Amino acid sequence: MKINWLAVVKILSVLLILVGILMWTSLFFSFYFGGEDADAIGLSGLTCVLPGLLGYALSRHQSGGIRKREGYLIVALGWLTMTAFGMLPYLFSGVIPEVPKALFESISGMTTTGASVLTDIESTPKGILFWRSLTQWIGGMGIIVLTVAIFPLLGFGGIELFVAEAPGPTSDKIHPRIRETAKRLWLIYVGLTVCLGAILWLMGMNLYESINHALTTMATGGFSTRNASMMAFGPSIQYVVIFFMFLAGVNYSILYFSLKGRWKDVWRSDELRAYLGLIAFLAIGVTAALFSAGAYSLEQSFRNGLFQIVSLITTTGFVSADYSQWSAGLQMLFFLLLFAGACAGSTSGGIKVVRHLVFFKNSLLEFKRILHPHAIVPLRISGEAVRGRVITHVIIFLLVYLAIYAIGVVVLAVFGLDFSTALGGMATCLGNVGPGMGELGPVDNFSQLGPGTHLFLCFVMILGRLELFTILVLFMPYFWRLN
Amino acid sequence: MKINWLAVVKILSVLLILVGILMWTSLFFSFYFGGEDADAIGLSGLTCVLPGLLGYALSRHQSGGIRKREGYLIVALGWLTMTAFGMLPYLFSGVIPEVPKALFESISGMTTTGASVLTDIESTPKGILFWRSLTQWIGGMGIIVLTVAIFPLLGFGGIELFVAEAPGPTSDKIHPRIRETAKRLWLIYVGLTVCLGAILWLMGMNLYESINHALTTMATGGFSTRNASMMAFGPSIQYVVIFFMFLAGVNYSILYFSLKGRWKDVWRSDELRAYLGLIAFLAIGVTAALFSAGAYSLEQSFRNGLFQIVSLITTTGFVSADYSQWSAGLQMLFFLLLFAGACAGSTSGGIKVVRHLVFFKNSLLEFKRILHPHAIVPLRISGEAVRGRVITHVIIFLLVYLAIYAIGVVVLAVFGLDFSTALGGMATCLGNVGPGMGELGPVDNFSQLGPGTHLFLCFVMILGRLELFTILVLFMPYFWRLN
Repeated sequence: MKINWLAVVKILSVLLILVGILMWTSLFFSFYFGGEDADAIGLSGLTCVLPGLLGYALSRHQSGGIRKREGYLIVALGWLTMTAFGMLPYLFSGVIPEVPKALFESISGMTTTGASVLTDIESTPKGILFWRSLTQWIGGMGIIVLTVAIFPLLGFGGIELFVAEAPGPTSDKIHPRIRETAKRLWLIYVGLTVCLGAILWLMGMNLYESINHALTTMATGGFSTRNASMMAFGPSIQYVVIFFMFLAGVNYSILYFSLKGRWKDVWRSDELRAYLGLIAFLAIGVTAALFSAGAYSLEQSFRNGLFQIVSLITTTGFVSADYSQWSAGLQMLFFLLLFAGACAGSTSGGIKVVRHLVFFKNSLLEFKRILHPHAIVPLRISGEAVRGRVITHVIIFLLVYLAIYAIGVVVLAVFGLDFSTALGGMATCLGNVGPGMGELGPVDNFSQLGPGTHLFLCFVMILGRLELFTILVLFMPYFWRLN
Repeated sequence: MKINWLAVVKILSVLLILVGILMWTSLFFSFYFGGEDADAIGLSGLTCVLPGLLGYALSRHQSGGIRKREGYLIVALGWLTMTAFGMLPYLFSGVIPEVPKALFESISGMTTTGASVLTDIESTPKGILFWRSLTQWIGGMGIIVLTVAIFPLLGFGGIELFVAEAPGPTSDKIHPRIRETAKRLWLIYVGLTVCLGAILWLMGMNLYESINHALTTMATGGFSTRNASMMAFGPSIQYVVIFFMFLAGVNYSILYFSLKGRWKDVWRSDELRAYLGLIAFLAIGVTAALFSAGAYSLEQSFRNGLFQIVSLITTTGFVSADYSQWSAGLQMLFFLLLFAGACAGSTSGGIKVVRHLVFFKNSLLEFKRILHPHAIVPLRISGEAVRGRVITHVIIFLLVYLAIYAIGVVVLAVFGLDFSTALGGMATCLGNVGPGMGELGPVDNFSQLGPGTHLFLCFVMILGRLELFTILVLFMPYFWRLN
């Protein structure tokens, strides 16, 4: 069967119209702060909406369903289209005049990475800056649709693990019940964002900044309106942000269960308990290390340790301290945390806790299997046996992730980045975190890289955000020969 | 069933007697060069042989077979015993007076790693230095027994892949045919060592140095009698060493087939072709990179590039140039090569080509499996379908390897090593290579580390050499509860 390109165009057109309309919402802040960037934003929106309308007009009569291959193309091209058009406000306003950098900022937004090429965020026009925060929030919303509705359709083995209510790849068409689930999770997403925005505002942040930070926190994105990121705010605001970063890293199905008071279902989740346990364990360790080093009081050690841990594990990427000044052991730990990721079914990027859990539990079982080769030793997650097929897929994902990482660091080194900068930059982009290491550390930005490096990292961020396989499959000749 | 400790003691005693006798062979070179270290070597040998005889006398009447658990204990404790007693010549002669350093040198030898704490190799007494080279050769011989005879017994899934003629874990007792295979492979090992020694001697190396380098090359160990390692010798000797390092990295069954003229069996090996292809591909790339950088002639670029690649892939660890001065891209590549390893069934350490191959081929197949979830897509290596159980074991091995690596770099960083030194040091010790990065680079040595770091790296080298699971299984409470 040939690829139904018209169906692809139709959905991309709708996405494009939506992007344009969302762009125009930035006009509100633009006008409020003087309107210097209003023309650029208005024109950018128009440059999205007009081709979108044209594409929709051409494809609106298409018939025939969307099957697997169209699904893959829509996901990949959808993200590309949204990010390519999403960079227009940066270009048209002259805030970021070079295409590779503007694209980097746009992709860093839509993939909820949070790495930035802006050297002086505070001098950027407020409408543009709001758009920048909004791209992360849109990206986060996109990820929820992906996880709940699209990935099961594409036959990603093991999605049952990640979203408790997804019906699994039994049908090739989107199940109506999935629409309901997606809506419900979106509502939680919107609700939590509003809630965080209100709390930040009540705690004394101005309205503009509280909205921006609410958007980027709930998306686990990490763009800030301040050059100093979260270092610019006081302890109480930092604690609030820690709590909401933590929530943003929880599986949305679990958040739904807890809203419904189904605590038994919440607590049954091995992933949630591992996520909590990991954070608690590391928080105690890092607090002790920081306090014993003597530079911070006990409260400061605890707050700074916890903030960085939660920010990195959830792949948000806010910083509350310049941890590149901390000890070698802590920096190595923070480097490794770039490979953690929070819960599946959240907006966080990276590998995610459930995959680590599958790997860890299964490795322990492997010893039993070696000693008793004829016994059947099933792996259980959250009380249910995991199919062998799913285990294999998860483990292959982990290794492919690391293989891509290894290739990527060589590419970055060839582009001239030094050793730790290459290792950190690749890890932070592939995991959609934000801050890296070396010259891309917590208080640096990505502006000094060359255009080739920016474009390469753009690809890496999208690869990581779309769980590798969605993109890689398009490079398989097999995919295009498929009947 | 309880563990048959007497059977364990019996074999350890035999090993200890053997170690003592082999130690005494160093007396030949000791006396030849003046005998300053003869007392230390004689006493060390005695300290091995006497407890060995005592242990053997106590356990010689033991009855009852060796089963899986005794097998694991013999492998782990055997390596520990041999290395612990192997350090005596360093201690008694005063060449390395501290226990952690002497143990490090001994374990680096027996595991065929080749990392050294000696700061001036050339001033070390010649008998001691010969013992140092011999430990690597003994270690290499041990590895051949392990792969051919012990691992199948221990039920390591997937050993069928590695040694074409091993009968697999069908019986719990060592099959008599395996003894034959082991003997045959030892003969090849001895033959190649003699052959290399003769060639090096004919090319003008003195007899002592040619024997030492033959021993450490065939073991893929990399201890040299020169401070400058292979930089001390001319191009023609370097080419010979490249060729023999390459041979030492080939599966010994394949070497046997080629001696028998069974070329069809040789060429059928996917692993051999991947190994050749990888070396050829990288040699061309690195030659081009070095030549275009302008510091070397074309021949020098080719020789230095090929030397380092073969040395790192086979985990030998000789150096023919200080590649820490080369470009960032090449150094990143050489860092990643610490994770390569040559063919399984050779004396090389690390992950090994066949595991990478299983991972790579299986990942490509995973795309087909995602697109066609109901199809059965078998993985073929060397023309034969690989069982799912074996694939899983290989992939789990890879991930456990990387997980241990990750934990190890944090430990090293906590011990105070800087970022790239920790990353390189852990990789080179776990992969049994030799040179690392940063302050443990190709022209540095491991003497400046603290005693805790030395002991930790001792553990890491043994863990890597014994393919992780052999050691890790001893830490499972399950292992000790087993009936």
